[in-house]
Amino acid sequence: MDKENALKTLRSIDNELVLLEHITATLYWDQEEAPPLAQEERSRQIGLLEKKIHELATGDSLMEALVSLGADEKKKDGDDDLDPETKALVRQRYRQLSKESRLSSDFVRTFSETTSSAHQVWAKARQDSDFSLFEPVLEKIVGLLQQKADFYGFEDDPYDPLLDNFEPGMKARDVESVFSPLEKQLQYIVEQLRGRPEVDDSFLYQSYPVDLQKKFSDKVLNAMGFDFDRGKVGLSTHPYTTTLGADDIRITTRYTEASVASPLYSIIHEGGHALYEMGVSHGSLKGTCLANAASLAFHESQSRLWENMVGRSREFWHCFYPEFSRLFPAQLKNVDEEAFYQAINRVKPGTIRVDADEVTYSLHIILRFNLERKLLSGALAVKDLRDAWNDELRRLLGVDVMSDKEGVLQDVHWSMGEFGYFPTYALGNVYAAQIYDAMKNEVDVDSVIEGGDFSPIHDYLNKNVYSFGSIHDPKDLLMKVTKEDLDASHYISYLTKKYVSQEGY
Amino acid sequence: MDKENALKTLRSIDNELVLLEHITATLYWDQEEAPPLAQEERSRQIGLLEKKIHELATGDSLMEALVSLGADEKKKDGDDDLDPETKALVRQRYRQLSKESRLSSDFVRTFSETTSSAHQVWAKARQDSDFSLFEPVLEKIVGLLQQKADFYGFEDDPYDPLLDNFEPGMKARDVESVFSPLEKQLQYIVEQLRGRPEVDDSFLYQSYPVDLQKKFSDKVLNAMGFDFDRGKVGLSTHPYTTTLGADDIRITTRYTEASVASPLYSIIHEGGHALYEMGVSHGSLKGTCLANAASLAFHESQSRLWENMVGRSREFWHCFYPEFSRLFPAQLKNVDEEAFYQAINRVKPGTIRVDADEVTYSLHIILRFNLERKLLSGALAVKDLRDAWNDELRRLLGVDVMSDKEGVLQDVHWSMGEFGYFPTYALGNVYAAQIYDAMKNEVDVDSVIEGGDFSPIHDYLNKNVYSFGSIHDPKDLLMKVTKEDLDASHYISYLTKKYVSQEGY
Repeated sequence: MDKENALKTLRSIDNELVLLEHITATLYWDQEEAPPLAQEERSRQIGLLEKKIHELATGDSLMEALVSLGADEKKKDGDDDLDPETKALVRQRYRQLSKESRLSSDFVRTFSETTSSAHQVWAKARQDSDFSLFEPVLEKIVGLLQQKADFYGFEDDPYDPLLDNFEPGMKARDVESVFSPLEKQLQYIVEQLRGRPEVDDSFLYQSYPVDLQKKFSDKVLNAMGFDFDRGKVGLSTHPYTTTLGADDIRITTRYTEASVASPLYSIIHEGGHALYEMGVSHGSLKGTCLANAASLAFHESQSRLWENMVGRSREFWHCFYPEFSRLFPAQLKNVDEEAFYQAINRVKPGTIRVDADEVTYSLHIILRFNLERKLLSGALAVKDLRDAWNDELRRLLGVDVMSDKEGVLQDVHWSMGEFGYFPTYALGNVYAAQIYDAMKNEVDVDSVIEGGDFSPIHDYLNKNVYSFGSIHDPKDLLMKVTKEDLDASHYISYLTKKYVSQEGY
Repeated sequence: MDKENALKTLRSIDNELVLLEHITATLYWDQEEAPPLAQEERSRQIGLLEKKIHELATGDSLMEALVSLGADEKKKDGDDDLDPETKALVRQRYRQLSKESRLSSDFVRTFSETTSSAHQVWAKARQDSDFSLFEPVLEKIVGLLQQKADFYGFEDDPYDPLLDNFEPGMKARDVESVFSPLEKQLQYIVEQLRGRPEVDDSFLYQSYPVDLQKKFSDKVLNAMGFDFDRGKVGLSTHPYTTTLGADDIRITTRYTEASVASPLYSIIHEGGHALYEMGVSHGSLKGTCLANAASLAFHESQSRLWENMVGRSREFWHCFYPEFSRLFPAQLKNVDEEAFYQAINRVKPGTIRVDADEVTYSLHIILRFNLERKLLSGALAVKDLRDAWNDELRRLLGVDVMSDKEGVLQDVHWSMGEFGYFPTYALGNVYAAQIYDAMKNEVDVDSVIEGGDFSPIHDYLNKNVYSFGSIHDPKDLLMKVTKEDLDASHYISYLTKKYVSQEGY
């Protein structure tokens, strides 16, 4: 195949794959409102599209085009004379093809069947709070993940090729070198906060009318620069962000009268993801696989940056609290701005990851990363996982787990066969702080936030992060934005200033 | 290909096509809630799926399988030793493949591009009430439809192969032989009603709270046997029914406070379509193309039967009026059951098809059928269409058209290049009355309706119509259900009794 044809083929297959992925996202989105018995066929519809995606993404036509453009295992981004964007496209497509092709279709089917049925088993076990019900299928999943790592191939650590699916190019030892010191530093912060008087946040849990909550969070989304011509907010049990088209980014939340902080922060969190998704689709990137985030941790860095660094700052509430407290005069009658700020930043070690505050959150992740690695290497047997979990939580956070439901069974990820996903949550926090510090060199973020129009922040992130899509690997993009390698000291310094010395940040 | 493999291939391709069609329906459904700028990519997503459907439905694999099963132009349902259901499957797939293959891909693209752009032009022309704006593109469309008929091939009438897309096996002269006498009989009924005192229906246009309207229409859907585990009701500007999966049938309506009858009857109408869609997917038909209505007119017969024969009967309101008037005590203070019944059955010749009553509705259709045929044969030029329309409406209904918007520009169908669709609306009325009379031999419909639980009617239709899916051509199914050929006298007798002699029916 000559180069011109190879390029045409590559672009056309890439375009089709992106369309098929967006169609699949629409089928998932619509599930929320489908009638109960629709589920069975919907799964088959999704299965059909996923099969088509797999066939196209690993097919001979694509391989031939990539090879004609000079791609091979040693040079995944193809010939040197290709322009940088094309090189990135070649790299992304070659990487996926080369990894996916190593899995036999038998293995893929077994893996998919096992994890599909595991979901029900996990849900039941969680409901009954009985890890022993989940143990046999988790054992099977760990075995399959070990096989998967073998199929992919690795140098030092079977965890590497799994992690690479979410954080391209990153190794388990890279994560370890960040998490090891981080663990101690976070524990030190928790230690310093112990003994301080407990913050009262009970007023957050009164009755807050949903329409007023919605009014306020729409206002915040507008201030962030969420484009309602290209996106919308829906409802679902678990909040998420999904891309149904280059100009169709949807986020969800779950409003509840009984709580005002959690729906708002889930909106800001998903709003951060949405800004990233909206920012990657532009110019020649639009409609290609390069119109994606650089990695999962990069994605999470943006949701966290908006949720925590912007949305939980003193400046944010200095700007918005007058209006917010006017919306809910009865509920916030005796609550001043500072008391409100303290409440939404209350630190309290607990058992549940998704309820964790900014300081303890990453310790929950470190626990999962450590256990995943041990399970995969065989150093920890599934039958000993519950005890290992409970011991580790006590060690890291000084908290006792009272039931499997609140412990080892709380997360869905392992039932889905996803090892290597969890670390990206904590890495997101670390990236976020590092990017935030870099941004401060160009943007006076404190006054911007206090002013209530966040466009200078949005513009900075758009220009320096979002607009690059996945042209660069996360490591390279981080260097480009912050001029340094991954460095958790920004994160620790942010947490220390905000929580220990209680300075602004 | 041996027969066993051919059967396997046929079934697998048929299954995949049905899944792809349901996925496409989901993409259309979701458009209603997509953000404004999402439209552009959504069109490309739908285009991709439609291309895949076309390729698969006209591809070599399917052709090879059909030929191996003995299908050819003379024997479209294949070898005699196939079971009846397989023969029907072979017939449906062969018919589609054979017709679609006759259109060159160039022609299909030109047709699709022309009708896509025509929609905007029509909408603008309608808004400005100026037919001359729409004239040039309609001329192009008529030319393309003439070509299409030539590509398909025909014996007597170019209208036949177009009509056949909606009403398999029916010819233009069959329609004519029904419509010619029907026209005179309907005009005779209209004549007899002229001079009667005008019915007051102004109380239908007060303020009716939407939540109460919804409560009542859900109750009616329940009485009809609409299965909320397999379906749901949504909102859209124009009401419709769509099938997103064998167990996922959705209908829409548009509630408005200012009117109580139109949303209710659109719900019952679409509910009738939905019952048909729910009834075709069962046993071995489920997931195949046989899980479809026998034809468009058959489909319409079911929406009309439920909407008019059941939903506008004296018995229906004798059962439901007490509850209905309790829901809206202020609005219906001085309105007794008989006055209400008269109002929702008010006959008044007008210019707009979708607002037409039961008696005059089919005359609007006959007008369109006559004009379509003349345009296609060349007997009528597009430039003379507006005058022809206005003359014909005066002749048929004695009504003057005051603007193009209320006349020749009122319907979207021609801008979509759909000739042969309109007659199925009136045929639906005719089928409905004939089936209703047949049902009366087995079911005491009057007392069933008066009892408020319509399951005996639903059961009858399920057993005698819905459950056959598209195994039989409409002509054969009608014979099976009613033991006679298409006969409009049932319809005329129904209208005469109900409207002229004002007996129950």
